[in-house]
Amino acid sequence: MKAEIIAIGSELLTPFRQDTNSLYLTEQLERLGIPVMQKTVVGDDRERLKAAFGDALRRAELVIGIGGLGPTEDDRTREAVAELLGRKLKREEEVVARMEERFRARGRKMPEVNLRQAMVPDGADWLPNDHGTAPGLWLETDDQRIVLLLPGPPPELKPMFEELCLARLRPRAPKHVFAHKVLKTVGLAESDLEERVAPIYREYTNPETTILAAPGQVEIHLRASGADTAEALRRAEELAERLEQALGDYVFARGPETLEQVVGLYLMMRGATLAVAESCTGGLVAERLTSVPGSSHYFVGGITCYAEKLKAKLVGVSPALLRRKGEVSAEVAAALAQGVRRRTGAVLGLGITGVAGPTGGTPDKPVGTVHLALADAHRVKTEKHRFLGDRERVRWQASQAALELVRRKLLK
Amino acid sequence: MKAEIIAIGSELLTPFRQDTNSLYLTEQLERLGIPVMQKTVVGDDRERLKAAFGDALRRAELVIGIGGLGPTEDDRTREAVAELLGRKLKREEEVVARMEERFRARGRKMPEVNLRQAMVPDGADWLPNDHGTAPGLWLETDDQRIVLLLPGPPPELKPMFEELCLARLRPRAPKHVFAHKVLKTVGLAESDLEERVAPIYREYTNPETTILAAPGQVEIHLRASGADTAEALRRAEELAERLEQALGDYVFARGPETLEQVVGLYLMMRGATLAVAESCTGGLVAERLTSVPGSSHYFVGGITCYAEKLKAKLVGVSPALLRRKGEVSAEVAAALAQGVRRRTGAVLGLGITGVAGPTGGTPDKPVGTVHLALADAHRVKTEKHRFLGDRERVRWQASQAALELVRRKLLK
Repeated sequence: MKAEIIAIGSELLTPFRQDTNSLYLTEQLERLGIPVMQKTVVGDDRERLKAAFGDALRRAELVIGIGGLGPTEDDRTREAVAELLGRKLKREEEVVARMEERFRARGRKMPEVNLRQAMVPDGADWLPNDHGTAPGLWLETDDQRIVLLLPGPPPELKPMFEELCLARLRPRAPKHVFAHKVLKTVGLAESDLEERVAPIYREYTNPETTILAAPGQVEIHLRASGADTAEALRRAEELAERLEQALGDYVFARGPETLEQVVGLYLMMRGATLAVAESCTGGLVAERLTSVPGSSHYFVGGITCYAEKLKAKLVGVSPALLRRKGEVSAEVAAALAQGVRRRTGAVLGLGITGVAGPTGGTPDKPVGTVHLALADAHRVKTEKHRFLGDRERVRWQASQAALELVRRKLLK
Repeated sequence: MKAEIIAIGSELLTPFRQDTNSLYLTEQLERLGIPVMQKTVVGDDRERLKAAFGDALRRAELVIGIGGLGPTEDDRTREAVAELLGRKLKREEEVVARMEERFRARGRKMPEVNLRQAMVPDGADWLPNDHGTAPGLWLETDDQRIVLLLPGPPPELKPMFEELCLARLRPRAPKHVFAHKVLKTVGLAESDLEERVAPIYREYTNPETTILAAPGQVEIHLRASGADTAEALRRAEELAERLEQALGDYVFARGPETLEQVVGLYLMMRGATLAVAESCTGGLVAERLTSVPGSSHYFVGGITCYAEKLKAKLVGVSPALLRRKGEVSAEVAAALAQGVRRRTGAVLGLGITGVAGPTGGTPDKPVGTVHLALADAHRVKTEKHRFLGDRERVRWQASQAALELVRRKLLK
């Protein structure tokens, strides 16, 4: 069984909005062993919708349409699909009752226009929507192809798919299924990583391997197929293990965890606490660490000392040192790490100073120069980096390297 | 003239990667008055590619293919399009010479496989690529439809489109062109905004109006058409002005500027400086302010006092006050704002304390409760909010409201 996805809505053809539901559905379908072969984005236009669904049904056994099920005249998915398949629409009183109840619970009367959402094509099953008004629709054609229409808002689409569609699709899905594994690495350039792992993954056609590089992070995605989930998983894990051996400590996660989550986990396991004094990253490292629920257990606080005099005033970096070495130096990074540690009473202190750009660079200290330091009670370790890219990219890479410095320390 | 975009690459059919080039191209094409009617994502499969281009050429006068022009066997766009249009591919020696030169400049020899990238269909123009090896291709069919093939990496695609394609498309573009305007607002819920502006924008079919709501921000996008740019712009501006009058100070930007950029601009204009003491937002406000180049002119620093005792130690909030009122209170927000102002010497001090969740809420102070305070030399203003959503959403909305508090102060 192959699938196609049609994302519907004129706003998805503007420069401002993008379909993201298809990424979610692709992941769900792949787990069932159903690959997505094509995606189409089309406006709320009845003729174009009919053509798009018609073309997709010639190529795929499962066609999922997303959106265009709203109450207003703009929304035409229901009508287009009913017309294409030659089904009459008729009002389903149970859907009306559910919608009225929904409005009543909010102390409102259902507007007349919503009645359009209760129109169900002949022979279709409607799927109740617990998070909005538009029901989903499940239609089958005479040659047993499936058309599934889902509402566009993710909080409505996701539970409807998982609770009402997955179980119905599973028995129709192919005998082989897919399993995914991901290895996330930090500290290795893409080409260096490729050199280490290519000889290994090239031995395998199953799993398929994809390398995705982002600033300061390279991910290896494996997709294995098998007769059942256990077999597919076993295949993915076998390769993942060999790759991990080749990469060692560069691997920081074997799943969806972010670097800040992993650092948090290590801090928790060691019973350690962390404080950050940052300059060029301007609060980004603190923001990332505190984005993790429960981070108050190990993150005590941060100081963004952007103005030079605040490095002295808030973190206690000596003004003489600042004059002698300059704000962007290993010595000042070390003083920031030690100072923030002392002032907050944290077990570990992290210091970051650098030139994020676009201005402020010098021949000595060009844009992208970043000094990091990590202090504990006994010693302070410093690192110098030179990151490429614009301000945002430099700041992001600096925050990655800073978190990685903490992770390395806690690995030992 | 109508356009369709075909994004090519099997990785774009995985859950991990998404086409974003089409957003850029849509914006460029709309400026020429060429609307994008449909978008297709298809894998590197010759038959599917031929079908996708064939279908699109039946519907649109301009079909832009993105990607699949690489040197390896995986990349099949060139071959598929040549076959569809019945054109022979032949090697273009000038392209070979340019590629060889490119490799030579990097001290490398061109691999044999790259020769595939020099294959040009009969009658096609090739577009030199100054930022990569794959040239673009411009083909015209017998019925004067255009097929434009562009390389996938944005740093190659964008200059190629702007420098080599825009000027060629302009004379073929329709007589009417589009102009865009955006109004960004903060502080109004979508439904309240809608109520104020709907009676106005409904008077117009040109410009078209789209309301886009994001957490803590609602944007109004206008698209006007006219015989020339001046006319289209005049139409967009006329409506924009009326909408702005109805919305007053809720409008913070009339263009692409972010709230942090606008706040920075106001601080600069007033010669004021700002410092931030944040708890639940964990550095997000400092991070957003310092993401703007040149922010060191007005942002002096921030303190993320995550642990309770650091609110006393780093910002000087009285421990008795913390005990009496609790960390999440208007009084502590005010003490944070005044304390950080005093300790940093900034003109304005901003204080933020709240419950970001998912845990830590109480019946009194449920998740999403956030107190904000802004202090100058004379007074301190506090605000209480209750934000809905998950941790990320609460933090983001709190940062929006905090920046908005500063903007409002500086407006006066």
